[in-house]
Amino acid sequence: MRELPDGTQALDESDLEALEIGSGILGTGGGGNPYIGKLRARQVLRDGYDLRIQPLDTLADEASIVPLGGIGAPLVSFERIKEGREGLRCLRALEQRLGFVADAVGCEEIGGQNSMEPLVVGALAGLPVVDGDGMGRAFPEMQMTTYAIYGHRSTPSVMCDPHGNIVIFDHAITEKWHELMARACVVAQGGASVLASAPMSGSFMKRYAIPHTYTQAIGLGRAVSEARRVHADPIKAICTREGGRHVFSGKITDLQRHFKGGFNVGIAQIGGLDGFSGSTAEIVIQNEFLIFSRDGEMEVCVPDLVVVLDLDSGLPLTTEVMRFGQRVAILALPSHHLLRTANALEVIGPAAFGHPEFTFNPIPKREAAE
Amino acid sequence: MRELPDGTQALDESDLEALEIGSGILGTGGGGNPYIGKLRARQVLRDGYDLRIQPLDTLADEASIVPLGGIGAPLVSFERIKEGREGLRCLRALEQRLGFVADAVGCEEIGGQNSMEPLVVGALAGLPVVDGDGMGRAFPEMQMTTYAIYGHRSTPSVMCDPHGNIVIFDHAITEKWHELMARACVVAQGGASVLASAPMSGSFMKRYAIPHTYTQAIGLGRAVSEARRVHADPIKAICTREGGRHVFSGKITDLQRHFKGGFNVGIAQIGGLDGFSGSTAEIVIQNEFLIFSRDGEMEVCVPDLVVVLDLDSGLPLTTEVMRFGQRVAILALPSHHLLRTANALEVIGPAAFGHPEFTFNPIPKREAAE
Repeated sequence: MRELPDGTQALDESDLEALEIGSGILGTGGGGNPYIGKLRARQVLRDGYDLRIQPLDTLADEASIVPLGGIGAPLVSFERIKEGREGLRCLRALEQRLGFVADAVGCEEIGGQNSMEPLVVGALAGLPVVDGDGMGRAFPEMQMTTYAIYGHRSTPSVMCDPHGNIVIFDHAITEKWHELMARACVVAQGGASVLASAPMSGSFMKRYAIPHTYTQAIGLGRAVSEARRVHADPIKAICTREGGRHVFSGKITDLQRHFKGGFNVGIAQIGGLDGFSGSTAEIVIQNEFLIFSRDGEMEVCVPDLVVVLDLDSGLPLTTEVMRFGQRVAILALPSHHLLRTANALEVIGPAAFGHPEFTFNPIPKREAAE
Repeated sequence: MRELPDGTQALDESDLEALEIGSGILGTGGGGNPYIGKLRARQVLRDGYDLRIQPLDTLADEASIVPLGGIGAPLVSFERIKEGREGLRCLRALEQRLGFVADAVGCEEIGGQNSMEPLVVGALAGLPVVDGDGMGRAFPEMQMTTYAIYGHRSTPSVMCDPHGNIVIFDHAITEKWHELMARACVVAQGGASVLASAPMSGSFMKRYAIPHTYTQAIGLGRAVSEARRVHADPIKAICTREGGRHVFSGKITDLQRHFKGGFNVGIAQIGGLDGFSGSTAEIVIQNEFLIFSRDGEMEVCVPDLVVVLDLDSGLPLTTEVMRFGQRVAILALPSHHLLRTANALEVIGPAAFGHPEFTFNPIPKREAAE
């Protein structure tokens, strides 16, 4: 990162490499494949555009920030090449619909490719991306952002597909209705589009965004790379940095995944290895890893982060690249406190994902020294 | 009908009774249940609004006409009450999006409830409905209008549901894409919404609308009622008036219907009665009656009209009120020549409905004297 005269930070290719890893970890298996996202952002950088991050505290209160991201199933966006300017078309159509000019681009979810999409759009539009996001991780549905949870109304919004179709969700009576209509429409569009939501003010974003998640993800990625470089343990590096813990290691013994209603859904079974042999773990998937159970007992669930790493490389795995027989490590990372309030848990707690039998029991945030 | 000083025709309750029957016949089983539509239009009339028809030839060339209609599955709109102002919200949102004021409302399809929806919206907005439509019957998909076939681009369009959600299809790269996105979205909205398309000019509509279909449907309904009143044969009255023929009578022996992708689809089997005993007929359904076969041989298919009447009353049946054991008469009516061109057959011929094995062989239009 290189500070520019206007106070924004310009990213270089090494930042994108680090963001790929860090956003993959925070993505908890979803948010779109970060490798594909990195390739797209890097191409934009090589084409001569600036990828810029704006520190949250430098944002003017009255600034207009347009949050945006890819919508659809990660599996589709992994296999199907984007046209490239979907997000820019969203931004321009939204500006036209509402008669305003955006000051910055916002990130809906820092996890996976959705950390890269705002950078690409910001670059093409000449705008910085605010250093923060609405999830601090990845979640499968649009209403699951701190923006929506704390009162931002996301319509009018604009959704654009690779073909050139443009749909405006002009008014949704609730955030959940917005999600339902957009999800149905993105399936018709082929399963991977971009959606830009109604602008937020700088003052709102400073209060309710999960702060500094771009610098967090880049720092996390650098820590993993550094641990790998010096043959130290990347798993330990992640846990130390994020205050999390290593909860399981094992081999994937069964993997059920299917594409349903515009989502990747499924279950992974993992047989224990090393210090965990004799135990079995299960992970419930809806685009992201939602719930981790050991020997039939739920241990970690949304909104806390269930992260799956390749056991040997320490690099994060997304749901669509998991394979039978893979050796994996499972980490539990504590979620930001904005995700743990009663309001938030109604939208992103286990009951919101169809598991009312589980109660969210926040994992303690360990001290970095531990 | 009563002519007003401005040259438009005001409808009364007896016109709505006749339109219910006539639009039911032209609806070929679909277009939404005309009885429900009549109740809604009648209520608007009783609330003191004018239901007005504007003769096609009085339309100014530069007039802006907004075509609209219900979208979804007829079965849903039969069972679920509309909120009532969906169409008016569509019209207002479209006017706001494009910055114009509509001069008249247009009809997408004269068949079934979709003959009534424009009257309701026109009444609430104080606008007349142009005497003509885009189908001269009913078809299941939006791109199947003469408007779309002869070059009108239907986006930007606005779709509103009973809940208050508003979606703008701002740009669709083709008419079929518009249909695909709107169909997916209406399913998410519950299966019965209203959609208003981009305005057409008066000169375009005078050239490409199926002309005079409101007065045609009302006249047809009156002829059936009159035949019933004097104990004459309503089937003969319809055939005489529309130049069609009575192709089958029988009892429904099997009826497969299901709700798929936002449509009612299915097949009806009919065992012959009276002069047709010993023969079996089959009708293919997608919201409407599409294809009539006798003893395994296709005889009548889209765009020509396959009409199913209750054998005793001579009144038309929609697909959702057909029942096992019902005694029915099947009529074949010739379609308008605008539906029979090579351009039109690409969109509304049997191949467009998944039956490339059939070739459209237009039924001859019989003389009224016959």
